[in-house]
Amino acid sequence: MGKVLTLGEIMLRFSTNQGIRLAQSDTMAVHYGGGEANVAISLANYGHDVSFASKVPNNSLGEAVKKHLARYHVATESLLFGGDRLGTYYLESGIGQRAASVVYDRAHSSFAEMTSIEWAKEDLFDGVDIFHVSGITPALSPTWQTLTLDLMKSAKEHGCKVSFDINYRGKLWSQKEAGEVLKTLLPYVDYCSAGYMDAVHLLGIAPQEGEELPYYYKKMQALYPNIQVFYSTKRQVTSASDNHLTGTLWMDETYFESTTQAICPIVDRVGGGDAFSGGLLHGLLKKVSPQEIIEFATAASALKHTVHGDCNQFSEEEVNGFLAAGSGKIIR
Amino acid sequence: MGKVLTLGEIMLRFSTNQGIRLAQSDTMAVHYGGGEANVAISLANYGHDVSFASKVPNNSLGEAVKKHLARYHVATESLLFGGDRLGTYYLESGIGQRAASVVYDRAHSSFAEMTSIEWAKEDLFDGVDIFHVSGITPALSPTWQTLTLDLMKSAKEHGCKVSFDINYRGKLWSQKEAGEVLKTLLPYVDYCSAGYMDAVHLLGIAPQEGEELPYYYKKMQALYPNIQVFYSTKRQVTSASDNHLTGTLWMDETYFESTTQAICPIVDRVGGGDAFSGGLLHGLLKKVSPQEIIEFATAASALKHTVHGDCNQFSEEEVNGFLAAGSGKIIR
Amino acid sequence: MGKVLTLGEIMLRFSTNQGIRLAQSDTMAVHYGGGEANVAISLANYGHDVSFASKVPNNSLGEAVKKHLARYHVATESLLFGGDRLGTYYLESGIGQRAASVVYDRAHSSFAEMTSIEWAKEDLFDGVDIFHVSGITPALSPTWQTLTLDLMKSAKEHGCKVSFDINYRGKLWSQKEAGEVLKTLLPYVDYCSAGYMDAVHLLGIAPQEGEELPYYYKKMQALYPNIQVFYSTKRQVTSASDNHLTGTLWMDETYFESTTQAICPIVDRVGGGDAFSGGLLHGLLKKVSPQEIIEFATAASALKHTVHGDCNQFSEEEVNGFLAAGSGKIIR
Amino acid sequence: MGKVLTLGEIMLRFSTNQGIRLAQSDTMAVHYGGGEANVAISLANYGHDVSFASKVPNNSLGEAVKKHLARYHVATESLLFGGDRLGTYYLESGIGQRAASVVYDRAHSSFAEMTSIEWAKEDLFDGVDIFHVSGITPALSPTWQTLTLDLMKSAKEHGCKVSFDINYRGKLWSQKEAGEVLKTLLPYVDYCSAGYMDAVHLLGIAPQEGEELPYYYKKMQALYPNIQVFYSTKRQVTSASDNHLTGTLWMDETYFESTTQAICPIVDRVGGGDAFSGGLLHGLLKKVSPQEIIEFATAASALKHTVHGDCNQFSEEEVNGFLAAGSGKIIR
Amino acid sequence: MGKVLTLGEIMLRFSTNQGIRLAQSDTMAVHYGGGEANVAISLANYGHDVSFASKVPNNSLGEAVKKHLARYHVATESLLFGGDRLGTYYLESGIGQRAASVVYDRAHSSFAEMTSIEWAKEDLFDGVDIFHVSGITPALSPTWQTLTLDLMKSAKEHGCKVSFDINYRGKLWSQKEAGEVLKTLLPYVDYCSAGYMDAVHLLGIAPQEGEELPYYYKKMQALYPNIQVFYSTKRQVTSASDNHLTGTLWMDETYFESTTQAICPIVDRVGGGDAFSGGLLHGLLKKVSPQEIIEFATAASALKHTVHGDCNQFSEEEVNGFLAAGSGKIIR
Amino acid sequence: MGKVLTLGEIMLRFSTNQGIRLAQSDTMAVHYGGGEANVAISLANYGHDVSFASKVPNNSLGEAVKKHLARYHVATESLLFGGDRLGTYYLESGIGQRAASVVYDRAHSSFAEMTSIEWAKEDLFDGVDIFHVSGITPALSPTWQTLTLDLMKSAKEHGCKVSFDINYRGKLWSQKEAGEVLKTLLPYVDYCSAGYMDAVHLLGIAPQEGEELPYYYKKMQALYPNIQVFYSTKRQVTSASDNHLTGTLWMDETYFESTTQAICPIVDRVGGGDAFSGGLLHGLLKKVSPQEIIEFATAASALKHTVHGDCNQFSEEEVNGFLAAGSGKIIR
Repeated sequence: MGKVLTLGEIMLRFSTNQGIRLAQSDTMAVHYGGGEANVAISLANYGHDVSFASKVPNNSLGEAVKKHLARYHVATESLLFGGDRLGTYYLESGIGQRAASVVYDRAHSSFAEMTSIEWAKEDLFDGVDIFHVSGITPALSPTWQTLTLDLMKSAKEHGCKVSFDINYRGKLWSQKEAGEVLKTLLPYVDYCSAGYMDAVHLLGIAPQEGEELPYYYKKMQALYPNIQVFYSTKRQVTSASDNHLTGTLWMDETYFESTTQAICPIVDRVGGGDAFSGGLLHGLLKKVSPQEIIEFATAASALKHTVHGDCNQFSEEEVNGFLAAGSGKIIR
Repeated sequence: MGKVLTLGEIMLRFSTNQGIRLAQSDTMAVHYGGGEANVAISLANYGHDVSFASKVPNNSLGEAVKKHLARYHVATESLLFGGDRLGTYYLESGIGQRAASVVYDRAHSSFAEMTSIEWAKEDLFDGVDIFHVSGITPALSPTWQTLTLDLMKSAKEHGCKVSFDINYRGKLWSQKEAGEVLKTLLPYVDYCSAGYMDAVHLLGIAPQEGEELPYYYKKMQALYPNIQVFYSTKRQVTSASDNHLTGTLWMDETYFESTTQAICPIVDRVGGGDAFSGGLLHGLLKKVSPQEIIEFATAASALKHTVHGDCNQFSEEEVNGFLAAGSGKIIR
Repeated sequence: MGKVLTLGEIMLRFSTNQGIRLAQSDTMAVHYGGGEANVAISLANYGHDVSFASKVPNNSLGEAVKKHLARYHVATESLLFGGDRLGTYYLESGIGQRAASVVYDRAHSSFAEMTSIEWAKEDLFDGVDIFHVSGITPALSPTWQTLTLDLMKSAKEHGCKVSFDINYRGKLWSQKEAGEVLKTLLPYVDYCSAGYMDAVHLLGIAPQEGEELPYYYKKMQALYPNIQVFYSTKRQVTSASDNHLTGTLWMDETYFESTTQAICPIVDRVGGGDAFSGGLLHGLLKKVSPQEIIEFATAASALKHTVHGDCNQFSEEEVNGFLAAGSGKIIR
Repeated sequence: MGKVLTLGEIMLRFSTNQGIRLAQSDTMAVHYGGGEANVAISLANYGHDVSFASKVPNNSLGEAVKKHLARYHVATESLLFGGDRLGTYYLESGIGQRAASVVYDRAHSSFAEMTSIEWAKEDLFDGVDIFHVSGITPALSPTWQTLTLDLMKSAKEHGCKVSFDINYRGKLWSQKEAGEVLKTLLPYVDYCSAGYMDAVHLLGIAPQEGEELPYYYKKMQALYPNIQVFYSTKRQVTSASDNHLTGTLWMDETYFESTTQAICPIVDRVGGGDAFSGGLLHGLLKKVSPQEIIEFATAASALKHTVHGDCNQFSEEEVNGFLAAGSGKIIR
Repeated sequence: MGKVLTLGEIMLRFSTNQGIRLAQSDTMAVHYGGGEANVAISLANYGHDVSFASKVPNNSLGEAVKKHLARYHVATESLLFGGDRLGTYYLESGIGQRAASVVYDRAHSSFAEMTSIEWAKEDLFDGVDIFHVSGITPALSPTWQTLTLDLMKSAKEHGCKVSFDINYRGKLWSQKEAGEVLKTLLPYVDYCSAGYMDAVHLLGIAPQEGEELPYYYKKMQALYPNIQVFYSTKRQVTSASDNHLTGTLWMDETYFESTTQAICPIVDRVGGGDAFSGGLLHGLLKKVSPQEIIEFATAASALKHTVHGDCNQFSEEEVNGFLAAGSGKIIR
Repeated sequence: MGKVLTLGEIMLRFSTNQGIRLAQSDTMAVHYGGGEANVAISLANYGHDVSFASKVPNNSLGEAVKKHLARYHVATESLLFGGDRLGTYYLESGIGQRAASVVYDRAHSSFAEMTSIEWAKEDLFDGVDIFHVSGITPALSPTWQTLTLDLMKSAKEHGCKVSFDINYRGKLWSQKEAGEVLKTLLPYVDYCSAGYMDAVHLLGIAPQEGEELPYYYKKMQALYPNIQVFYSTKRQVTSASDNHLTGTLWMDETYFESTTQAICPIVDRVGGGDAFSGGLLHGLLKKVSPQEIIEFATAASALKHTVHGDCNQFSEEEVNGFLAAGSGKIIR
């Protein structure tokens, strides 16, 4: 099993109950999550030695974050306490034709307002196989663009593989701004979650009529030959409750695609992409075949959609059991 | 924006939780609603100046009704307090193959037992663009048949458009009785919700093999040329959780039909028709094109099916957003 | 209406809430059920005079079982109190692609540890038309294999029809062990729930390429000509939330099959088979036609899937109403 | 153990959750209860053979009443189905300084609108030791005043003891009206729940400065020497959550008083008086000493205050255990 | 009835469920409130014409605030939409010996970040009898210190009485800072909520051994003779569930004190002070006697403690009913 | 901070909701706990390095136990997986006069059925300051009597202090049996939780009229001079909701007693004693004064009573804050 460090912001999510709008809600469900924290939990579920680095306020909400991570066996030595607040967001859960709707309230968080690397790098990266971070982190502030680059360089110096999920969010920065920053970061990346939209809108690859995803993966790798693995999902949305999900992987200069998973009904879609990334990194760490990697990752993501909360709750054995048995039988 | 008055009974609804039958329930959800009150809330959501006239008992349940309306910005100056009780009904929510089931307990309510017009008509109708009432009101008692006619005449005298939703309920009166009363009321109506069943069973139009809805709309308008607009929905029921809904409109002597909305899963179907009427009246008040009217109304109804309770919870902007975006994407 | 005795173990079931895994649950739903108890409740719902014989501990959980049965008008004179514990099991409810998962904790229960017939047989069987028991009972212990045989013989002596649901559970005994015991029991059985898997794996009938269920029913009857009726369901599993169910019946040396019921979403699948058996025995007691029997039984099972808990909650009138109306209309 | 018949109205109660007012509630708890039904359940808990006679509508709510009674082993052969509605009431639960508040909606119920004795009297009273009814029944209508008298006379003819709880409710009839009716009924009563207020305001006994309850019991018995037992509780109200309760009994021309029970916090006070009556009748049936009777009845009432719902949930053994152990120890 | 304007910040409160700590909570209750909004709702409950001025973000949470106010009949014409966020705070509800605990997350809110008076003053103050604001508003920012002074001056110019609740919060500003600002504001105040702590720590009145509250009221009035009315509560804390509350009033140069209310158990203490202020202003508007004013205000506050949420849910009639009846009786 | 190992059984607890009896419950709360596990969590909360050794089944319930411990930062390297079942028990929560009631279902658990020391002792005890175990462990089986002795001896050999909580349970073994086993164990104990009942009924010290707890502590120490510290609580039970708790300590041959804590209302009493032990061991590890130790331990126990679940949820800082501030103030 590998040793993994993920680093990023973790937020408090408030979700509405089914069939109730946000402005009517007199009770909300509480979850803690963030892309990198969710990936950390997935990997800890699969038996890896995982640590999550972030900064949270020194109050009950920060303590709740720490308990959340510990519960799933993610190490919290690099979880810093300080700053003003925990970023929050409100999710009005969608159902059927009604899309989910998100209200963000994440500015000024303890993590976003960090101005320097407060961890000792030798502690952070010592013995780490994979350092995973997402594009949300450099989107938080100009400072974080510098710090992210700095961390990636250090990770490389310590012999880590760098995993990066572009995860572009238009509410945080413009495509132009993101594109420029990505140019500085991607040269240090080994594994990268990126799809058609990223290729065209952020990395400047010209859309080509009739070309499919393999074309864009190839083009991206041509730009950044250091990146050994690209991956992303294709999601076909029938309704907020009914999606089809297919995992895609570019590896060994070859394109791989998973069986399509029909997910209906969707219990909670948040974290589905992180479960996919977690499954993919697990496959890379286990060094199984590319087809096995992408099947596992997509199955892991499908299962995540059946539980509330951001984080994958399934062991490696359970994901494999699902792949073997297909869906819906009672396990007695 | 227009000024609208709706008048009718509002009831207390008790609903079971999902997967629990009425006779087993040890907790029930509480909602307040009625056709005209639900239309009032829809129109207030869209920014109109709306008032609801009714009568409720002078107790906590009457107060709850008042708070319910005020919360959605419906004026309550014409909500009278007095009489014996608030009508109630029990909804065993359906799911999948199991149909919903209703137990009514509405007799002797404060509204049903009214014996005279207790409002000052000049206050009721002053400046009102549309006066909306449904066929449930005259069905409540012979007295209410007279009062409804009286109110419609007054509304016309004050220059209001009269909107009428036939909404036939076999538990309240026979088709014969309803047919006779409708003959007295429809000459005062401008906008009328009526479909094939109403045409044939209440208005005496002979069913014609091979003819579709436009034929019956045309026939109905021939009988009541004062009615400028007819509308209704076609609902295809796969199961209690899965319906297809299409809005239909007869206006400018032309038949219009909306895109069909696939609604699955249905959270709460009650009030779906009222959300449709509310959307339709909104379109008439905004004077947009007939096709825009029927698309908006059907979309509004589809969205209503995704929330608990009788009343539409969506703004004009949200309904239009749904029409533009299609279903199920996360709005971040 | 008939007089029926069912006998078997009844257990305490803990179920998770939707979208929550067992290891995360901080609240669980409580149900009481077991194959024979569930059949008893179905038949009591249909107006039969039904008694359930079992043994439960003399504590609050035993009392809860008694109240559960009484609530559904099942007589509890033969419910014994004593022994050490009530068997329990944990159901992680499935949804969509995620299958349900069961953790059993049923060893050492008051019923399983019985070592002799503690009831007076003349009280048990007096005036009883049908004695119903399942294959779970002899699977509990070698002693129960002897006791089950003894009870079946006594039932026959008292003029009862013996109904037997094979209900093979691999966690309780091997196919070999079950096959040997079944050989001793089946000669006393009149009505038997058994399907293709039972025929091949337990009764030793050789699988025959291209042959369908009627072939195996015929073969089973050839082995046990005393068995007048065989029945089982065919279940097509799209996901944990979406199944198609078809009832099958072998009677009067003829094969009958019900309309296929499309069940989506499934609220709770546990007890679906017992509702089927209950419906079938009801049809046999009412002496309606085989096709009516199998339609009723399958409809009863479909409706059971729409409610939480093990037991069928529908009257004969409601099942027939469902058959007449089809699914999903509001019953006003 | 004895055989008991109780007869009266049973209602559907909706209760608010703690700390939520009625006009705010979007969920309410559902309970079924009524004075005589509650007494029936108490006595069935203590092992007596109890039947409850009433009339409920032939719908899901009527079925719920039947299930409620059956669950507690009360026989329902005399529960008639028919009429228009189940009476309901709304309880805004009190807490601390805030008193509970009740909104009644009980007019026109199936039971209240009965116009004749629809039961065969020989079935009702055959072998019955005690026939119990309360003053609420004759308060429902002039017809019920006649029917109650008729039933009491029949009960006496069949050799039953007649138990009567005056239970005066000012919302149902005036003191004058009640007083006149009581004069016709009390000559047929053997056991009577009546206190100081009843003596003075209904039975016309002049209040006497300095005299206590024994004086009024004696005076009442002088008026109705046929009444062998009088009983009532003294309740000292500190707050809605904190009461002191003392049981009083006049029997064998002697006054008995129980230990005072300090009840804090009160979970649900409704049905506390019925639990007291149930305990008292149990003592009379068991023929224990008057002091034992009044201690048991008061303890039973105190325990009832610690559970939600109208009905006593405690066995004879548990009430005696409470009397022996005092309050609050963990029973391991 | 009077016309009242209150102005201030309104926040989103998340509360834990009873017996659950914040860091464990997976669901929280949602309330909206703030001192001035709570006072507005109290006065609207009592029948006054009340408007609340504030600024909330233009999202679902802002809409929820608007619905919250409208439900209680508070006018929202002066509720502005814009800015970045709604201030939030987390309340870990206390019980028994465990004190409640608050985590604030209110910086950068739409209201706190206002930099100018965005309302037309003639609309704000037209016809207004009382303008009410609290010391939390000037504590939010130096800008708000200026704006508050400006608003008070305008209010006086428009002939309003100015009501001010000092409501000192050490987390927002120091005693020294508060003291200096108060000196500029208090010359414009007519009614002031201030107690011993305010007198000594903010207004610079020297503590005097043996002197009680009347002494400090007198001293404060000597400093600000324009202030006609001072008021505050004395709270004796036995535990988080058990408080004694006494209202005090300085008016007509005389000291008045209410009956002490014993509040146990406390359901929700937040907003108890605002309910007191609301009751007091109601008394001033009704021009009843000082003793009646202080009794009413204290009773209103006591009742508030028995319901969840920030706002008083009781009508004038209910508060008077409580004063007349004392605590805990069932109101049938 | 110290290093601590606790070892014992951990069970699954099902608790009823407030005001609902066990036999009525259709939902139950789920908690995991056991004396030694609860002590482990307390000490981890206070910052010590704590590990818990036990054995749980290799299923979802075992996994839930592991997650429960990890959440509170207790190391789980010595948590073994295997065996048949997790012991369970049912707690009908008490309130007011109604005592809590427990139904045990703990026989045949994975831990109870252990037959040898499955841990490597050098791993278990390496560097451990305190090894804590309770009298429940040897009560589980004769084998566990031997194993407990063996573990204690090993602990001493590895230089650990041995902490032992007698925790006598009459349902598990007789006083005579316990007394004999204790004689073999106590010679290896350093810190011992034992009170008057233990002294007299288990250790054979003759009760002495007029003597108080110090006398018995002294006598016990005379018997076992190796035991340096004795401690226990005195609990005065007014009702299930209202207790007074006083901590007592014998140390340095001197008797210490804490301030008495008045606990009302009690949220959940289970684990109150373990929180006391945890607080006491913390004081011993910190080497503060005996009076400080006993105050801290008693305060920790009092706070535990205000939260649901077995385990203490308070940090050292919070316990000290409570001691400093007293009860019930809002912490803003």
